[in-house]
Amino acid sequence: MTEAENTESTGRVEFRVSPDRYRHWKLSADGPVATLTMDVDEHGGLVPGYELKLNSYDLGVDIELYDAVQRLRFEHPEVRSVVITSGKPKIFCAGANIRMLAASPHGWKVNFCKFTNETRNGIEDATAHSGQTYLAAVNGTASGGGYELALACEHIMLVDDRSSAVSLPELPLLGVLPGTGGLTRVSDKRHVRRDLADYFSTKSEGVGQVPSHMPLLIDEAVPRPRWDDTVAERAAELASRSSRPQDASGVALTPLTKTADDDAIRYDHVEARFERDAGRVDISVKGPQNDPPASIDEARSADFWPLAVTRELDDLILDLRTNESELGTWVFRTEGDPALVLAHDELLLSSREDWFANEVLHYLKRTLRRLDVTSRSLIAAIEPGSCFAGSLLELALAADRSFQLAGVFEDKDPDAEPATVTLGEANLGPLTMSNGLTRLQTRFWGDEAGYEAVTKRKNEALEAEDAADLGLVTFAPDDIDWDDEIRIATEERSSFSPDALTGLEANYRFAGPETMETKIFGRLTAWQNWIFNRPNASGPDGALRRFGTGQRAVFDRKRV
Amino acid sequence: MTEAENTESTGRVEFRVSPDRYRHWKLSADGPVATLTMDVDEHGGLVPGYELKLNSYDLGVDIELYDAVQRLRFEHPEVRSVVITSGKPKIFCAGANIRMLAASPHGWKVNFCKFTNETRNGIEDATAHSGQTYLAAVNGTASGGGYELALACEHIMLVDDRSSAVSLPELPLLGVLPGTGGLTRVSDKRHVRRDLADYFSTKSEGVGQVPSHMPLLIDEAVPRPRWDDTVAERAAELASRSSRPQDASGVALTPLTKTADDDAIRYDHVEARFERDAGRVDISVKGPQNDPPASIDEARSADFWPLAVTRELDDLILDLRTNESELGTWVFRTEGDPALVLAHDELLLSSREDWFANEVLHYLKRTLRRLDVTSRSLIAAIEPGSCFAGSLLELALAADRSFQLAGVFEDKDPDAEPATVTLGEANLGPLTMSNGLTRLQTRFWGDEAGYEAVTKRKNEALEAEDAADLGLVTFAPDDIDWDDEIRIATEERSSFSPDALTGLEANYRFAGPETMETKIFGRLTAWQNWIFNRPNASGPDGALRRFGTGQRAVFDRKRV
Repeated sequence: MTEAENTESTGRVEFRVSPDRYRHWKLSADGPVATLTMDVDEHGGLVPGYELKLNSYDLGVDIELYDAVQRLRFEHPEVRSVVITSGKPKIFCAGANIRMLAASPHGWKVNFCKFTNETRNGIEDATAHSGQTYLAAVNGTASGGGYELALACEHIMLVDDRSSAVSLPELPLLGVLPGTGGLTRVSDKRHVRRDLADYFSTKSEGVGQVPSHMPLLIDEAVPRPRWDDTVAERAAELASRSSRPQDASGVALTPLTKTADDDAIRYDHVEARFERDAGRVDISVKGPQNDPPASIDEARSADFWPLAVTRELDDLILDLRTNESELGTWVFRTEGDPALVLAHDELLLSSREDWFANEVLHYLKRTLRRLDVTSRSLIAAIEPGSCFAGSLLELALAADRSFQLAGVFEDKDPDAEPATVTLGEANLGPLTMSNGLTRLQTRFWGDEAGYEAVTKRKNEALEAEDAADLGLVTFAPDDIDWDDEIRIATEERSSFSPDALTGLEANYRFAGPETMETKIFGRLTAWQNWIFNRPNASGPDGALRRFGTGQRAVFDRKRV
Repeated sequence: MTEAENTESTGRVEFRVSPDRYRHWKLSADGPVATLTMDVDEHGGLVPGYELKLNSYDLGVDIELYDAVQRLRFEHPEVRSVVITSGKPKIFCAGANIRMLAASPHGWKVNFCKFTNETRNGIEDATAHSGQTYLAAVNGTASGGGYELALACEHIMLVDDRSSAVSLPELPLLGVLPGTGGLTRVSDKRHVRRDLADYFSTKSEGVGQVPSHMPLLIDEAVPRPRWDDTVAERAAELASRSSRPQDASGVALTPLTKTADDDAIRYDHVEARFERDAGRVDISVKGPQNDPPASIDEARSADFWPLAVTRELDDLILDLRTNESELGTWVFRTEGDPALVLAHDELLLSSREDWFANEVLHYLKRTLRRLDVTSRSLIAAIEPGSCFAGSLLELALAADRSFQLAGVFEDKDPDAEPATVTLGEANLGPLTMSNGLTRLQTRFWGDEAGYEAVTKRKNEALEAEDAADLGLVTFAPDDIDWDDEIRIATEERSSFSPDALTGLEANYRFAGPETMETKIFGRLTAWQNWIFNRPNASGPDGALRRFGTGQRAVFDRKRV
């Protein structure tokens, strides 16, 4: 489907795309080096009202980029470095489309930036963990989000043609921040000194060539005659460092089966039902139905349960975030056999050296990180018949609160086995949050004894009282109180200020250390959201709204 | 002067107070244990329009608290623990006054919270570094900012009378966050598990006694009959851990000499001239006029230059932040003999074991930290005759940009010595930023070679080219370009969106690691500021405005 069809046909933004339908990017994989060429269709905006000039982007453009990055990891085991470049003359990328930003409601801007950030983090994740190193071949001017895209790459080459430059003109021209990682990556990744970084970020024209006093902004400037050869050379060098396999076949990310209507979204393993009056989504995740394949070799398929369920969760999170902003509470349930979840985890973890197992684990990690930065209240309801074990237990650990039924539902199914949760190896390392710790470590931050006590119970099916005592779940009501407790918790949640909940969750979910990634979502994003909400940016006379009108912005000069 | 006189007489908020004039606090020092009793005068609000009921506070109340904390450190070397308690029955403190918050413009709220945060950080700093450990004797209900004040103390005792409780009702009642450290200290200091913290912070009534499932929220609950004895016992225990001196005499913080008019503020060592049209303040700091005293014993006085200049800078920063919000750029100059600055530093640093030297160093550290979180653009102008050396060099290192004149002003004073900067021992450890690093370490974050190179030049007077090459200053223009460069930099600054500058500076000033303190000013404060600016809190139907009116808030339910 094209972007235009995307929103027109259903009224919803769709994140499912595929390379044969890209409007804005060209993905070519040629042996160990792949090239992602950005050539944005001016008339391909996701929403009417703006033209995507100068390789500027909107959410639709970024959806394709995200898809390409994912496919490269799964469908192209042979690819060891990825060149991002532009298909337009003289311009690499002008960043987020300003008219789009100016016309968008606050929530759209924030959600768009969050997804953009996640995609750029994904590029860095591929470089760090998949042996697919990204190279920004900046063959024209890269401004704002264009340079921020380059900053997400490991190596930045700028064409030295006396006109191309890299710049962060957001502050001087638009009155906002380079908020999709720009400020954080300039200081904490490329280690540009704070005063030079300040200077660079207030200089709308940016810098070309290798600026003598700011050498860290780009890695090399290359004259046009030597450009193609040098890009190829660097890409080959980066590829040579990779440990991707030699003769592996890719795993096709076949189209997801998805039906969506006004009441629900359904996939094969995941179902989300909307309770609009209550402002709630009930999300149910099915565990695997069968034993895992005997070896990782036999698992290489989009049908492999851990991959299939992760793709569905990923698509659901993105869909709900973008299309269902009034459904403020997500309640997670699972259904299935905990032993089968743990067996699938075990196959993945014992095959971590295998490229495909590695990709599935990192994809699950990234998808769970999306949950952590999702501005919805997350609740886990752990009932008999559920399978909150290992990787699926992460859903409960990601939740703001969890409820585990003590005993069984006496009236419905008195002979059922009581609900259990099971800590597995998957909870103890691979699925880190963006703060670098596991969810379990973050949960027990500052409580080593508590952490020790709980990890000793690994692989034990823990009933509610035990799980609550150990601190794995929040509450353990019995069947008499169960419905009331969950109802009250979700009703209460939807009576609170949605903004205050967003702030509360953004703080409590990130106890402990901060990393570049958490700084992007915490410090940088929170300030950007504040600025987006200020009249100096978004008011009728604000810089974002006045840009390109020929009128200067009018500022309230008071410093806050 | 009383609070009422405070703003009435001059139209400005004054931060200079003294215990004999407190309206809201009583400071009693009795041997090793001091008691700070909060007994807020309902009619003593700093601004008309609200009553400070139930020991709620406004900026005026907190100004007195700040003064008391400072005086305890300097005037009371004998004090080893400080009990904070309430002089009212049944209520410890109800937090920030809600009508005050609801009626205040956005900038006032933000500035008020910043100062409140700094005062609470100062309480923790006294506990950590001065051997004055704070004990919260919560002898009645502590809600919101009241509990946040207790959280800043090392030990929290709650009276167990079946009615007193601690709570963070900001989110459920007001639609804002516990933003003066509350969320961060609950999770990162007291290590309350995230789900329990979430539960506690959405439960407006809070918890009393020692809540069995949340033992970390308070340290002990004590029945009223045993209250006084137990408080005295705990205070004595905390005092016994201190290394404060036995028979030292305090140093009186005598009234600052200050004159203020519409064009300038002048102290003995510091002068600030306002260029209102340019939106600029020119701040000039005088170095010491004489050699330091021969020993720290002879230095014990408020006239000791490092203490005197720090007090003046501290007062100036607070005054300008609160009273001059449209002056967005502060330009720092110094004047004097660098050798004398270094000699004073040397006396302090060689006497660090002495309580008074220790206090002066930590006070300077805290004052410089105020600069780091001040939402004004900071520029240092380093000219001939200046003394940017050691402790005063920190002003240049705190600046967003610095300019050092290459050579001399040929037309004005061709025979002058060129301007120099000198790195001293004071730059290499004691004056850490809130991220735990020195400004020099933060500046060279990720550039160890640069850091090594510059520290090798310690105690060398570096002229402009050298200083710029080493990365100690940003630019080194000569006298032909000097005026233009500084003028352009400051004019440009005042043409930008003040909000975007605040966000830019809040990011670039804090490269590298984050601590609890930076999380409070970064993650927590930035989200709170965003929420303060949202209609769900501050709009006419928002929770903050509707509180106490009997009408429920009306929320836009969209999650952002």
